[in-house]
Amino acid sequence: MKQSLLVRNPRNGQYDYQIFPPDAAELADICQRMRRAQPQWQALSIEGRVAALQQWKTASEAMLPQLIEALSADTGRKSESVLEAQLIASSIDRWCSIATDFLGQKIEKQSSIPFISIEQDLEPYELVGVISPWNFPLLLSLIDTIPALLAGCAVIVKPSEVTPRFIKPLMNSIAQVPALADVLVYIEGAGTTGAQMIELTDIICFTGSVATGLKVYQSAAHHFKPVFLELGGKDPAIVTATANLDHATSSLLWGSVVNAGQSCLSIERIYVEDSVFDQFVDLLVQKANRLRFAYPTYESGEIGPIISDKQVDIINEHLRDAKEKGAKILTGPGYVEHIGGGSWCFPTILINVTPDMKIMREETFGPIMPVMPFHGIEDAIAKANSTVFGLSGAVFAGSNEEAIAIGRRIKGGAISINDSALTAVVHEAEKNSFKMSGIGGTRMGPSAIKRFMRQKAFLIKQQPIASPWWFDSPH
Amino acid sequence: MKQSLLVRNPRNGQYDYQIFPPDAAELADICQRMRRAQPQWQALSIEGRVAALQQWKTASEAMLPQLIEALSADTGRKSESVLEAQLIASSIDRWCSIATDFLGQKIEKQSSIPFISIEQDLEPYELVGVISPWNFPLLLSLIDTIPALLAGCAVIVKPSEVTPRFIKPLMNSIAQVPALADVLVYIEGAGTTGAQMIELTDIICFTGSVATGLKVYQSAAHHFKPVFLELGGKDPAIVTATANLDHATSSLLWGSVVNAGQSCLSIERIYVEDSVFDQFVDLLVQKANRLRFAYPTYESGEIGPIISDKQVDIINEHLRDAKEKGAKILTGPGYVEHIGGGSWCFPTILINVTPDMKIMREETFGPIMPVMPFHGIEDAIAKANSTVFGLSGAVFAGSNEEAIAIGRRIKGGAISINDSALTAVVHEAEKNSFKMSGIGGTRMGPSAIKRFMRQKAFLIKQQPIASPWWFDSPH
Repeated sequence: MKQSLLVRNPRNGQYDYQIFPPDAAELADICQRMRRAQPQWQALSIEGRVAALQQWKTASEAMLPQLIEALSADTGRKSESVLEAQLIASSIDRWCSIATDFLGQKIEKQSSIPFISIEQDLEPYELVGVISPWNFPLLLSLIDTIPALLAGCAVIVKPSEVTPRFIKPLMNSIAQVPALADVLVYIEGAGTTGAQMIELTDIICFTGSVATGLKVYQSAAHHFKPVFLELGGKDPAIVTATANLDHATSSLLWGSVVNAGQSCLSIERIYVEDSVFDQFVDLLVQKANRLRFAYPTYESGEIGPIISDKQVDIINEHLRDAKEKGAKILTGPGYVEHIGGGSWCFPTILINVTPDMKIMREETFGPIMPVMPFHGIEDAIAKANSTVFGLSGAVFAGSNEEAIAIGRRIKGGAISINDSALTAVVHEAEKNSFKMSGIGGTRMGPSAIKRFMRQKAFLIKQQPIASPWWFDSPH
Repeated sequence: MKQSLLVRNPRNGQYDYQIFPPDAAELADICQRMRRAQPQWQALSIEGRVAALQQWKTASEAMLPQLIEALSADTGRKSESVLEAQLIASSIDRWCSIATDFLGQKIEKQSSIPFISIEQDLEPYELVGVISPWNFPLLLSLIDTIPALLAGCAVIVKPSEVTPRFIKPLMNSIAQVPALADVLVYIEGAGTTGAQMIELTDIICFTGSVATGLKVYQSAAHHFKPVFLELGGKDPAIVTATANLDHATSSLLWGSVVNAGQSCLSIERIYVEDSVFDQFVDLLVQKANRLRFAYPTYESGEIGPIISDKQVDIINEHLRDAKEKGAKILTGPGYVEHIGGGSWCFPTILINVTPDMKIMREETFGPIMPVMPFHGIEDAIAKANSTVFGLSGAVFAGSNEEAIAIGRRIKGGAISINDSALTAVVHEAEKNSFKMSGIGGTRMGPSAIKRFMRQKAFLIKQQPIASPWWFDSPH
């Protein structure tokens, strides 16, 4: 009998949805079918693939209400779900334009050897595997998928088992584009299914926690597969005495609590120059206290529920550990509240925090803002660089030049200057993850599409063919 | 007491050299010193690093006789040793020019969001580890090292324990450039030392066998380090009936037996269209029989000894297995000969070979040429793609167009057209390894330098700083 998994609803705690992951044989069969279909997709050329994706865009637009409803049930929050669903269209358009430019240009190389010329080709991987997380279930399942499809790959996607409701309406939209339906398959499943995917695909893109990312990397190494890992962060913000504190507090509040802090690029630590520390904290507390839970309705407030049950335990443990070690909670009750069956975390500002607290070292993934004073820029930079993470960060200062000079010394792939979490809205930048925050090429900027193709060279002897004896004339 | 390792001389079989690998604490100490020196090297800017490498070039040129002598003792062959030593200078010049162009250009990105601009930076990894093999001991130790140095990294290199004699003269040349000596260290050692390096460095470049490459990848995954693996090949050649057979046989003989076949890019399987098979084999046999061992002196012939003891066993096993399964040996005795204490393998042509033989499936790494007929292009391509390897290959046909059309269907990173093993002489092409032949970015073409730097983006708010309430205006 087929194994099924029950899925919890984050707003009411009910297990009101069920998924049916493919078993190992079914998954192998799906992958084999996709591999058989891939050469035809590749042969369509970039124009044909763009046309198919544009058809999908139209089909997904017709499916928007169903997608938004499913995503809202998956995540318990609505405005971000609307944004996610709308981003299918803009993401397809953006990548179609980049891919057309990129694949349209002929790559020429000059050889330094007489009578030998070089021609370059790009060859897509046949089958790409995408394992995506629950915090932005649709958006993060597409981020690697769309460029991989345009590169000419077939793509199998396994979204998190925590948020699988959107898969059905999405697959319905894909089914309306026959050329695409053969090479783009979303499957339901949890860790076991993900582990099997690593064996069955040619390259794996994983977005999620460091702990699972390490397992994915080890399994990929065991099967000799390349990986792209986009893992957690503990993004720091530095605020100098010269910064506009009204702007900094508004921007950092947004960067810390949007999607209830369940975002890899959310601000998780705030370091403020000691002379303006009290003033900063007062302003931040005032603004945080204006926020409300999106309960009982989606529209009741700005802060949605904590989506994953396991994350509730982590947030509570970080808060408990911080309080035990002397931290002072300035907003909220200091723990995740249970309301109507869901788990809700009020935006929580902490002071008197110390570097040994989990809340300053490990990814919390909640709307939590520990604020710590620093004395002098060297101190600020040492504090910002004191974790194993290196995803992104933010600097607020009196001028962009002052902020950039500080940002250059933060170990991280993207630094927002006089704003926070700008990687959420600006997609053109090329950025790598530092330290434990990831492995592999940049995934947002235009060059991300190259990750899905192998470069292949033809080295062509142009000399009239003679037959020199080899050791008289090596070539 | 310090552990030492004895080193065999491939010409006479004597254990006439000794190395003293650093122990774990010494190695950690070396890496720590290099990490302390790296920021200054990075701060030199590209002009300063180019100047230091040019000084090294001069110092290495003064050391050429010692380097050639040591490399010849390491490998038992001389002409390739001369070439390797001379390539230090041309490799430095080539990379200085590429790096100056690449790092000199300002990267600008256009942001699609109003009032936000993007600036891109490149940040080198602090400490790169290079683990290099014994077949071209100097050349392959430099291939990643020089671009990594120019990128601004410190580089620790562990050449194979089979061929370590060149390390001393090379380190003497490095010592003459103080700025470089702090950030470029060659160490002696075997597998244990290599394993420790993975833990102590930020990124590992490994060139060697698939078996060791798998171990390196698994250890790198365990320690969450990125890797570049350039592993073995079983490069196929396809020769159609339209090819110039005199040219094809000369070129393929060179591609198969240069460096006694101890080269990842050497031709290991030759598929010839059935109608010209006999004629091709006759010509190849005639030419192979003109070759001689470089014994008793380096100048006595073209074929040097088999460098590594372990490789002798592999070559003998592949030949034994082939004979047992019905292969016919047309040149040489069909095994590795022991002469004067060294191991020598005569260029060996085999026919009546079948796909199940080890010699058609596994890397032999000797001057061995199994030749097999094919019937029709589909058959040729299926045979060429029938191994787990995908490094490179060659196609000979009546026109370059005909050969390229076939080459497009071979799974491999570089295809020589109407010549063989051209990647040995043309370095400008960008190529990735397919299948088990490697993981990671292209390492020869100009873009190889990017592998040693992380892209970092500054996302800069240019709008006059206001303080909008966050949920009214997300930015």
